[in-house]
Amino acid sequence: MEVGFTTKRDLCWLKKPMQNKFSTFSVEDFKDTDAKIIHETLCMEISRLFPNAKEIFEAKAELIFAKSEDDLKEGFCISCFENHNVRILASEEIGYLHGLFALYEILAGERKVTIPYTSVPDQSIRMLNHWDNFDGSIERGYAGDSIFYDRNEFRGDYDLLTQYARLLCSVGINAVSINNVNVHHREAFFIEKPALMHIKKIAAIFSAYGIRLFLAINFAAPIIVGKLDSADPCDPQVKNWWTKVLDGIYEEIPQFGGLLVKADSEGEPGPFTYGRTHADGANMLASAIASHKGVIIWRCFVYNCRQSWKDRSLDRANAAYDLFSTLDGTFAENVILQIKNGPIDFQIREPVSPLFGALHKTNQILEFEITQEYTGHQIDQCYLLPMWKEVMDFDTRYEGISLVKDILREYSPSRKNSGIAAVVNVGMDENWTGNKLAQANLFGYGLLCWDNALSSEEIAERWVRLSFSLEEEDEKKMVDMLMTSRETYENYSCPLGVGFMCKPGIHYGVDVDGYEYDRWGTYHYADRNGVGRERSLATGTGYTRRYSDSRFREYEDVNTCPDELLLFMHHVSYDHVLHSGKTVIQHIYDTHFKGVETVEQYLAFIRTLEGKIEKAEFENILERAERQLAAAVEWRDTINTYFYRKSGIEDEQHRTVYA
Amino acid sequence: MEVGFTTKRDLCWLKKPMQNKFSTFSVEDFKDTDAKIIHETLCMEISRLFPNAKEIFEAKAELIFAKSEDDLKEGFCISCFENHNVRILASEEIGYLHGLFALYEILAGERKVTIPYTSVPDQSIRMLNHWDNFDGSIERGYAGDSIFYDRNEFRGDYDLLTQYARLLCSVGINAVSINNVNVHHREAFFIEKPALMHIKKIAAIFSAYGIRLFLAINFAAPIIVGKLDSADPCDPQVKNWWTKVLDGIYEEIPQFGGLLVKADSEGEPGPFTYGRTHADGANMLASAIASHKGVIIWRCFVYNCRQSWKDRSLDRANAAYDLFSTLDGTFAENVILQIKNGPIDFQIREPVSPLFGALHKTNQILEFEITQEYTGHQIDQCYLLPMWKEVMDFDTRYEGISLVKDILREYSPSRKNSGIAAVVNVGMDENWTGNKLAQANLFGYGLLCWDNALSSEEIAERWVRLSFSLEEEDEKKMVDMLMTSRETYENYSCPLGVGFMCKPGIHYGVDVDGYEYDRWGTYHYADRNGVGRERSLATGTGYTRRYSDSRFREYEDVNTCPDELLLFMHHVSYDHVLHSGKTVIQHIYDTHFKGVETVEQYLAFIRTLEGKIEKAEFENILERAERQLAAAVEWRDTINTYFYRKSGIEDEQHRTVYA
Repeated sequence: MEVGFTTKRDLCWLKKPMQNKFSTFSVEDFKDTDAKIIHETLCMEISRLFPNAKEIFEAKAELIFAKSEDDLKEGFCISCFENHNVRILASEEIGYLHGLFALYEILAGERKVTIPYTSVPDQSIRMLNHWDNFDGSIERGYAGDSIFYDRNEFRGDYDLLTQYARLLCSVGINAVSINNVNVHHREAFFIEKPALMHIKKIAAIFSAYGIRLFLAINFAAPIIVGKLDSADPCDPQVKNWWTKVLDGIYEEIPQFGGLLVKADSEGEPGPFTYGRTHADGANMLASAIASHKGVIIWRCFVYNCRQSWKDRSLDRANAAYDLFSTLDGTFAENVILQIKNGPIDFQIREPVSPLFGALHKTNQILEFEITQEYTGHQIDQCYLLPMWKEVMDFDTRYEGISLVKDILREYSPSRKNSGIAAVVNVGMDENWTGNKLAQANLFGYGLLCWDNALSSEEIAERWVRLSFSLEEEDEKKMVDMLMTSRETYENYSCPLGVGFMCKPGIHYGVDVDGYEYDRWGTYHYADRNGVGRERSLATGTGYTRRYSDSRFREYEDVNTCPDELLLFMHHVSYDHVLHSGKTVIQHIYDTHFKGVETVEQYLAFIRTLEGKIEKAEFENILERAERQLAAAVEWRDTINTYFYRKSGIEDEQHRTVYA
Repeated sequence: MEVGFTTKRDLCWLKKPMQNKFSTFSVEDFKDTDAKIIHETLCMEISRLFPNAKEIFEAKAELIFAKSEDDLKEGFCISCFENHNVRILASEEIGYLHGLFALYEILAGERKVTIPYTSVPDQSIRMLNHWDNFDGSIERGYAGDSIFYDRNEFRGDYDLLTQYARLLCSVGINAVSINNVNVHHREAFFIEKPALMHIKKIAAIFSAYGIRLFLAINFAAPIIVGKLDSADPCDPQVKNWWTKVLDGIYEEIPQFGGLLVKADSEGEPGPFTYGRTHADGANMLASAIASHKGVIIWRCFVYNCRQSWKDRSLDRANAAYDLFSTLDGTFAENVILQIKNGPIDFQIREPVSPLFGALHKTNQILEFEITQEYTGHQIDQCYLLPMWKEVMDFDTRYEGISLVKDILREYSPSRKNSGIAAVVNVGMDENWTGNKLAQANLFGYGLLCWDNALSSEEIAERWVRLSFSLEEEDEKKMVDMLMTSRETYENYSCPLGVGFMCKPGIHYGVDVDGYEYDRWGTYHYADRNGVGRERSLATGTGYTRRYSDSRFREYEDVNTCPDELLLFMHHVSYDHVLHSGKTVIQHIYDTHFKGVETVEQYLAFIRTLEGKIEKAEFENILERAERQLAAAVEWRDTINTYFYRKSGIEDEQHRTVYA
């Protein structure tokens, strides 16, 4: 490893020099052990964030941490600025740390709040999933190798991991799973002592910042690791084996969070092998972990990935709904279902998963993807907060609780076992995220999980202010760029919700038919007359019927279906007229030209930042933007040509569409 | 490595037990050192092929090897069966060995010849190119890992390599390059002592069977290995360096054949970097190797692999012709240009490269691909001899020497520096070639290079008789299967010469648009009206004009262009009527249905072979055939659907074409 690497690593949004300092600080002690570890961290963070404690803060300011009388959960209240002193109240000691980070942002001048300022997290679980492999690679990683592993060893860079934990805590993350949900052979053994000796060190670092560590497990571990004949969840031997394994884990890591499971999905083993249900599988593990108060997070990304494109009656979009909605109420209270935001797989535009609102008696986690698998590989900039906001604010139009963000909490029998998870976008790159601008997604994800009411724009502003020192005009331009970047990416890559026109395997760049004749269930069915997947109940796969009556009616009717989802829900002719007044084909041309034009504007703006931001950051952002433009041009020209060749309809504006 | 692996390895076509043996044999000694090595080999082979020398061959037969008074080159004459004795004449001792292998086949009863039987090779160089990497992988290898390398070490299995050399010698191969033409970093150092210590052992094994060893080199080796600033072929330092390197190689391997060079091709370095011509590059190396009588084999596979699909004026098919035809006569007498059989890249159907006949003053090697990169990965059976025969017998219709097989020899200023090379299909799989049936291609390649007059069918018959002990009817069916397999593969994968509708990168399986919007210059330009690449002089890229006047006229006119090359040469509408009387679209449907039907027949026949051939062979062939059928079905349905969606024209016979 490069010597001194960690000292050079970008500290991201915690690197602003502070203008104000405190003369003293005092902390009211909490009793339990975990809290004491956090207490130490807190003291260290105070001296880091406010390094010169001898200088005064407008006369002689003191920073006082005291126990709140209200239940603030992991949150805090910055209660007053009495005599210029600052008082931070919390119910749990981790709340002090969150309060401290909030105070830092306020005093750095990047944020204005009204005092007293109380902040309590909206979601209980605010998690990151690492898809890191033991060999150091990251599945869908675009920012270098894993920060945890290097060539089948634990990297052991604890300074780096401390920085990482600190960064995550500063935006409110409280749970991290550290290995890929596709658990390969070597990683299957993470549940055994030799690996746990390393993992416990990582867990301790995370604990100091209030973060629980989780492991993804291989459902066939009883066979692979335990040398049993079976992994049948209904076999008492199997449950026995898991109980011992979990006892062993908790012996080393008392604060261990639990297990994350991808079962019966894309080739992974699962209960189906034994003719059991997913409830059988999850509940067996839940029972084995229950005495330790751990949880089992069970992914709902289960579908037939060997289906035939020839059979239009099959629909991958129906799969998770059909499987898990029927199991509602059958899961143990420490099982949580983790549901991807959309019914397919992290496309730039999908409808919201119909499972939200369909489950009333099951703990739920909403899963996002911060790492830009389908959204530009951290080459193309794509600020994802607007998309995540849409999902969380989505009104399912069921009676009663109807917004996704409320459903998560309110329909989870155990409220503390609900929340949000996301596949993270960091790696060994010095700026954590490959593209500097992709930091905004990690930052924003944390903030949004904590405070669901924040706007995408407010988050973008806060990230820009913490990360750069720009004049107001440039700050505004950068925020505008972030705010439009999702629409821009959608414009040049995904017309009207059609999705999956990317290169197979790699998922970067355009290949309109790349998945069209394949086994993955993601088809656009473009022919010489029209394009789109018919998912209506009347003439399609009936996907629309998985929603509430109101949403069903909206999506079922081609005349009320929102434009941006039209080709996801319906197959229509190229001359079908959208609500926008444009035909489908003209919309395709227009959005693709517009997408590239916007990227050109981004690039022009970025070029003006030379000398205004750090050189390395400027070069990084510029280099990525140049590659984005090249990619966007290919998306535009390929998609336009593809549909021109199919439809034979000319662009009304006679721009260059290659034949 | 598995213990005893080499003893289990299939000996292929040299494993038949012999019915006849000799009482004694005598060999007339040759003088030079190389011949003595071969002499030893010869004696060993006699005892291997005719193990029980004490038993008599129709009374007391003797096997006599004597020097011929005619110039038989590497060939031989089985001059008589006097008193049941057998006399083999040769001019070079390697001829004895070839004569012995011929005798073995005759006595095994698998071949009938008229005595005296003289056989002299038609082509001087009969070469195999290994695309093996030092890490043990093989670029485009479908039969396991490399037989030479294993995880960046020399495998050192000399028994296996001896078997291999013997097998190659038995079909007349006399040259082998042992590393990938894409010379990666580690392999660039093969020209240095540490590697040469291993390579010389391989070379010695090959020499004993009359095979010269070649190395593929990296043109930038002076920089990578020599630490020079430049690899400029006109820099005296560079030439100096190469001279020393080659002196070093010949010091270790006096019988070293020479260098194989892929320059300025698909990302490989070359003379263009320094503004030099390919003649500059090749001649510099030729001069450096001249004192050792070595040769430089220079590949003509040079084209722009970063072109835009948007520019229809560019044509990769023109590239090799345009670059090398203008350099005719400028290459040193020990430079040989290696020219792929077609202008693109080893598709199942391409026109013959227009370079043949265009070069009159340049040594030439014709390059084939035995390894089934684009022809089914040794999963799908595809007996390639009919294709190779077409190329060698192709009449360029230039005046004078006009057949490709004659051009190779007659237009090479140094006749001994001409011939045929092919990328080989072997690996560590126990049957050498992954699919047992793919052995026929290696066997047939050797035979055809030696005797250009052999028919594909005769070669297939000889391979089937040597490899199996079948009843006549089954033998005939197997030969028929082999003989139709190329047409079958073409039927389901490549309509009318269009090519490259395969999955990018891997090159197995169907992806009609896989390369359509990419940078590789292989486009079919299918739209709602028609399909094909317009390469006429009148309205296309002018590729047709690269041929002789007669061929130009034939290809230029859509009415005289052969059906099988129509879409290679022209863009036509789907309802264009072929010489066959069918429309293009109906031809597509018909051939694709037929292709699958034929594979079904193959499979049915193969199932009847159970118990008639060795179990392992049966299972191998069956398993591959089942996978071939699945692949063929996907090719059929995808291509048919693709063109139905584009054209909107129904199959006249109303078979299932998915919408």
